Amino acid sequence: MRKHVMVAQSGGPTAAINASLAGVIRGVISGDTYDKIYGAVHGITGVLEERFLELSAKAREDDGFLDQLILTPAMYLGSCRVKMPNREEDPGIYDRIFEILERMNIGAFFYIGGNDSMDTIAKLAREAARRNSDIRFAGVPKTIDNDLVLTDHTPGYGSAAKFIAATMLEIAHDTYIYDLPCVTIVEIMGRDSGWLTAAAALARNSYNITPQLVYLPEVPFHRSQFLEDVRNELKRSKNVIVAVSEGIRDENGVYISAKEAVADLFGHKQLSGVGKALENLVKKEIGTKVRSIELSILQRCAGHVASGQDINESCRLGEYAVQRTAAGETGFISVIQRISDEPYLIEIGQAGLDDIANKAKMVPREWINEAGNDVTEDLFRYIRPLIHGECRVQWEDGLPVYLPVGHLNHAGE
Amino acid sequence: MRKHVMVAQSGGPTAAINASLAGVIRGVISGDTYDKIYGAVHGITGVLEERFLELSAKAREDDGFLDQLILTPAMYLGSCRVKMPNREEDPGIYDRIFEILERMNIGAFFYIGGNDSMDTIAKLAREAARRNSDIRFAGVPKTIDNDLVLTDHTPGYGSAAKFIAATMLEIAHDTYIYDLPCVTIVEIMGRDSGWLTAAAALARNSYNITPQLVYLPEVPFHRSQFLEDVRNELKRSKNVIVAVSEGIRDENGVYISAKEAVADLFGHKQLSGVGKALENLVKKEIGTKVRSIELSILQRCAGHVASGQDINESCRLGEYAVQRTAAGETGFISVIQRISDEPYLIEIGQAGLDDIANKAKMVPREWINEAGNDVTEDLFRYIRPLIHGECRVQWEDGLPVYLPVGHLNHAGE
Repeated sequence: MRKHVMVAQSGGPTAAINASLAGVIRGVISGDTYDKIYGAVHGITGVLEERFLELSAKAREDDGFLDQLILTPAMYLGSCRVKMPNREEDPGIYDRIFEILERMNIGAFFYIGGNDSMDTIAKLAREAARRNSDIRFAGVPKTIDNDLVLTDHTPGYGSAAKFIAATMLEIAHDTYIYDLPCVTIVEIMGRDSGWLTAAAALARNSYNITPQLVYLPEVPFHRSQFLEDVRNELKRSKNVIVAVSEGIRDENGVYISAKEAVADLFGHKQLSGVGKALENLVKKEIGTKVRSIELSILQRCAGHVASGQDINESCRLGEYAVQRTAAGETGFISVIQRISDEPYLIEIGQAGLDDIANKAKMVPREWINEAGNDVTEDLFRYIRPLIHGECRVQWEDGLPVYLPVGHLNHAGE
Repeated sequence: MRKHVMVAQSGGPTAAINASLAGVIRGVISGDTYDKIYGAVHGITGVLEERFLELSAKAREDDGFLDQLILTPAMYLGSCRVKMPNREEDPGIYDRIFEILERMNIGAFFYIGGNDSMDTIAKLAREAARRNSDIRFAGVPKTIDNDLVLTDHTPGYGSAAKFIAATMLEIAHDTYIYDLPCVTIVEIMGRDSGWLTAAAALARNSYNITPQLVYLPEVPFHRSQFLEDVRNELKRSKNVIVAVSEGIRDENGVYISAKEAVADLFGHKQLSGVGKALENLVKKEIGTKVRSIELSILQRCAGHVASGQDINESCRLGEYAVQRTAAGETGFISVIQRISDEPYLIEIGQAGLDDIANKAKMVPREWINEAGNDVTEDLFRYIRPLIHGECRVQWEDGLPVYLPVGHLNHAGE
């Protein structure tokens, strides 16, 4: 009797994480190693609470299921933010998980997520080794932040980068219209790494020089230098656009957003975003018209402008993970290895979970200009292929057609 | 010798105002009344400063020019924010404008814009009558706010509404993923009228009940009622999304955003957005996880999700205005008259400039529910057809291909 597969999603949403889920499902139903595939609702929490959706049945019943799942943003199975305790801290949780997996005749478990999720799956893989369990554990990467090591880039990043670059271009068109000096500050996600903010610079083209200034968290931010940068750019152009990471810090490592915390009328301090903080700074010190825009969660959920490249790769990473466990592997994560930039060629491979969890990949200092206010051509070469290709999202009555959120159908949520 | 045409754009940008410009150009080059068409750079300011682009030459030289112009967001010619003085205040400005138009052998002048722009063109039309000038003046409407009277809806509104509805659906997917109570507040444009915010409700579908609460500026906003509304919705669903207009006011007419102004560390009061104000209120009074998102200028510049219906109608309104001046009309604005909702049928017609300028159309009270926290089915019937249809924006290297901003090529800006 063939064993079954379990899959779950964890961490923050992206436009491509359901493509990886679709890849795992496709890997199972197109192969002959496994029988059914169960999705745990809300990550590892759903395993512990035994809340499952039988995904193989859905994929077989409905021909369009996988096609729609691939292009649906956020997480079909829902997410959780759980830090898996070490075995010594809570052996019971491990006993409970393995009891459930064995009772359900699970042969392989896939966790699609970022850094924390890889830590969870690494711990489960070690536990399996300790128990001599033959259940295989594999990770499938995802994070818009692109900060995982050992993979050229992460699923979800390309789509977020595409949204950011396209939106920056549209913001440029919008802000060019007046004949008055104006500064626009766009705050972009990425608390620790500047990969997302760097993508803003892709909006530059033959007629658009914006954003002229790009600040990443990899380089300390100096307010006085920033003001000088803005003043210099205002001499060259009436329309100055600044792309800034939410996570920039000053020379002492203090977040700029935190330093500019504002107090409400009741005296409570509110953490204002870095965009607002810099807007206030420009208003006060330079006095030009200035506004700030926070791209917020739109950059991770805009399925209608997902990158075709990203969606394809995300799907392949999921499928590959299933093929490798079927071939006997465990304790790994599927990764992307870049062969060349032009033409853009990659290979899907694998890396050890212990080597990838709890590490972070920053934008290399040499991909940021010396002044620390822009990115270099090397960085463009790296990002450009990742935003290529558009997805054929279906539209009906003027709106994109996505798959209903799976976990909402579960237990009447 | 045939006369020429002049056209300019004014007010805030939209995704459809260049489609109206393309319509005016098409009207000129496809008819036999007029010869050249000049675009004034930066609205009426460009007329006074004699900064012109010859658009007919561009359209004839480059086959793709009009097709690309139609789908390019914001304003190809640039904008201005000028309140035209009355003749008594500044007769010189009228003399100067007419001297230029006559010297350039202009037969018709078109101004594409919102309320203020219609005031400008109405004044110029009255001046022409006073002078017995045979130059004809016509307005072509645009505003994402949809607040012009005498037209069923305004060009630009449908595209903004489509962006808002699609984005609300994607935000819903994003926020559904956690199994924890969470309130998301989305701040939408529309200082005085709630048309844009109302479009958020189009995101509801067979699986998505969000946004559950919709607050428009047409109805006074009560903080205590708002908190009760949110508490009630949290009993029904873990994921509560609130769509709120930037312009909501309390029972005394005071903007909610203004009342919640925050002081920065230097003691300067900052006007925080209404989204942030309500976020703070929920955090303080209810204590659930809460976040706010400001759609900001993305809702008016996202050309890549423009409404096909909107773009087509915007183009037709421009073309129609040219045809009517060619037929001898002046002092009018082209408008949309709705024949039926289903099937959606419209006719293009005209209205008197004096009847449309300086008036505003609000969401009727009967299209808002009694509790003042949602919209009614009548409003859905009105908006739905306006977001229909997608545009075939070209993509290259992963980004939308727009027409370079025209006024930037002018005078080395």
